[in-house]
Amino acid sequence: MRPMRALLPVEEAKAIILGAVRPIERTEPVALDAAGGRVLAAPLTASQDVPPFPRAIVDGYAVRAQETFAAGQSRPAVLRLAEVVHAGEEARAALVPGCCVQVATGAPVPEGADAVVMFEDTEADGERVQVFKPAHPGQNIAPRGQDIAAGASILAAGTLLTPSKVGVLAALGVRELSVYARPRVAVIPSGNEVVAVGEPLAPGRIYDVNSHALAALVREHGGHPALFPIMKDTVQSVLDTLRDARGSDLIVLSGGSSVGDRDVMVEALARLGEVKFHGIAVRPGKPTLCAVVEGTLVLGMPGNPTSCLTNGYGLLVPALRVLARLPRVDRPPLTLPLARRVTSPLGRHEYLPVKVVEGHVVPVFKGSGAITSMADAEGYIEIPWNVEFLERGHPVDVRFF
Amino acid sequence: MRPMRALLPVEEAKAIILGAVRPIERTEPVALDAAGGRVLAAPLTASQDVPPFPRAIVDGYAVRAQETFAAGQSRPAVLRLAEVVHAGEEARAALVPGCCVQVATGAPVPEGADAVVMFEDTEADGERVQVFKPAHPGQNIAPRGQDIAAGASILAAGTLLTPSKVGVLAALGVRELSVYARPRVAVIPSGNEVVAVGEPLAPGRIYDVNSHALAALVREHGGHPALFPIMKDTVQSVLDTLRDARGSDLIVLSGGSSVGDRDVMVEALARLGEVKFHGIAVRPGKPTLCAVVEGTLVLGMPGNPTSCLTNGYGLLVPALRVLARLPRVDRPPLTLPLARRVTSPLGRHEYLPVKVVEGHVVPVFKGSGAITSMADAEGYIEIPWNVEFLERGHPVDVRFF
Repeated sequence: MRPMRALLPVEEAKAIILGAVRPIERTEPVALDAAGGRVLAAPLTASQDVPPFPRAIVDGYAVRAQETFAAGQSRPAVLRLAEVVHAGEEARAALVPGCCVQVATGAPVPEGADAVVMFEDTEADGERVQVFKPAHPGQNIAPRGQDIAAGASILAAGTLLTPSKVGVLAALGVRELSVYARPRVAVIPSGNEVVAVGEPLAPGRIYDVNSHALAALVREHGGHPALFPIMKDTVQSVLDTLRDARGSDLIVLSGGSSVGDRDVMVEALARLGEVKFHGIAVRPGKPTLCAVVEGTLVLGMPGNPTSCLTNGYGLLVPALRVLARLPRVDRPPLTLPLARRVTSPLGRHEYLPVKVVEGHVVPVFKGSGAITSMADAEGYIEIPWNVEFLERGHPVDVRFF
Repeated sequence: MRPMRALLPVEEAKAIILGAVRPIERTEPVALDAAGGRVLAAPLTASQDVPPFPRAIVDGYAVRAQETFAAGQSRPAVLRLAEVVHAGEEARAALVPGCCVQVATGAPVPEGADAVVMFEDTEADGERVQVFKPAHPGQNIAPRGQDIAAGASILAAGTLLTPSKVGVLAALGVRELSVYARPRVAVIPSGNEVVAVGEPLAPGRIYDVNSHALAALVREHGGHPALFPIMKDTVQSVLDTLRDARGSDLIVLSGGSSVGDRDVMVEALARLGEVKFHGIAVRPGKPTLCAVVEGTLVLGMPGNPTSCLTNGYGLLVPALRVLARLPRVDRPPLTLPLARRVTSPLGRHEYLPVKVVEGHVVPVFKGSGAITSMADAEGYIEIPWNVEFLERGHPVDVRFF
């Protein structure tokens, strides 16, 4: 069992991974109501004005502003009520001099009117409406196209469709649109000791934890995971499985836990493509592997569940988000003080699972083999390779899961 | 058109809403691979030990520790290699005195052995293994059940199933589990001027923006939105629609934009249940309505898209997350300085849509009728009712969408 080559600093590893991943080009149509959280594939140009007509933004009377210029508390402008326009209706006629039209919020302002006076500034007696305040032209009117002008570029390709952007699509009457496809991520477990969940657990065997944790992580970050059967620790098995995984946009291997198993993966990957690195200066998660096969990024994650998942957050998620064209930072970290002194190995970047108790950051790491390390954690902190300890109370950036 | 009653402070409105919503009780089974992001409905007790056997955590030799106590660089303990156990295998026999067993990381430690010595501290020549360092009992062994002990309570009911918790389920071989159902949220548009997306836009009409934006928001926060046809502004139409929405866990109405339309909703809701409030001291979003009908919370959102969506984030999302049993705070806010001075009306809590440009917070509010206000925003800040202005550079908490 030969040792891994020199360990790569984690920032270099991340740069290599991000350099090897290309944003997805495949697109697919989705209906408006499935568009939330997806990424727009083609720029959206407004097909029409929004609002599509000059719109009253208060309840009141549409007037010719100049007829109110001289109005005041003691000498109101007196106008004749020509008609009433509710929201969703249109005036039957243009506004003629000496008249006004009652309009509801959202109703079209009739032709000839250039201002809306609020009820509060008026007094009506049958058809006779007194206006006690001068109105300026444009008052309380949203002009046609004020919000969105027909022909304008509204959303760029690559825009993440948040609820408000879904609202913009709806405002323009868009029922179907083109979005980037969710990347297909092959999740491939390995290890002769690993058994698929649901099968009987023979002596010496453990269940496949990593595939399920990784698949959940992939789904959370815009990917479409495809779970593969457990791969044997032989070069041929790795070659066969990678052939089956062709057409994936990203391939994530996990396990086996020992150096020998890794060598099998490295050998197979070197035959099919280019091994970018093997072994990074990170704790936990040293035996991490990166290769590119026919343009597709392959990440080999450690078999230990905590190592696998911390690298999942630290390395896989950034790559997957680039691939899926999702914004880089999902959630800003929260800076909080450490509940106790923490030591960290020099020369190794550390991902430390933590939880927050009464505003303080408590490490919960129990060893990279312990799945409960991660299950108890609410997030993680990163300790750079050149930091040996952090004092109690030291502020750290917690990245929440 | 009568005015709304006295405006309620937004914090009181929120307290009333949260007091009126009860966490969902309905459960449903899901497969392990659909469990990510769901909420566990029954406490999980470990059915077995994890690891299910004492497990080597390094590659090396399983030994009886006491046989190495006297070992040193110059006088190694000499042991006979009895067998080799790979990961996934079991030793054929218990370890006998004077012997050792080669074990791979993850392999079961044979009976009789109580320590594993790393290869680095040994030298092997055929069956003769020299150990140069004393081992202490338990060294490099994860005892059976160390991570999870059979019978232990592992995950409480109400636990959000993050990827690491999905991993815990997998470690225990759980293939299917019971989770709380996603709340069914009826999303009901109204307003005589509103037209369903996809239908022709008659003069004076606008497309239904709010249903689609709200549905996307509901889906993002664990709800299952059901989009309803556009409700007419009549008491009978509201009564009929609310009858159709029975069985929903939460009902969200939106529009119409004018005071008169609201009165129709208030009247219908008062007949069917209890109106909790109507009108809150918030900008935008004043004409917001809360009622409880047959135990179900009903939120009436303003018709203006920006008002509707800011209240969606400020009031609907907290209520929905309680209902869905999701943790209260999804993302911590990010504190950044304001790019310019901001004024805010005294007496009104303000939700101000913003974006972040070069580390500074830029307001993007263009009026509550403008859907693009929200579309340009990356998040929002809140300005309390008793704050009249914030200076340029003042630190504010940005909540990202």
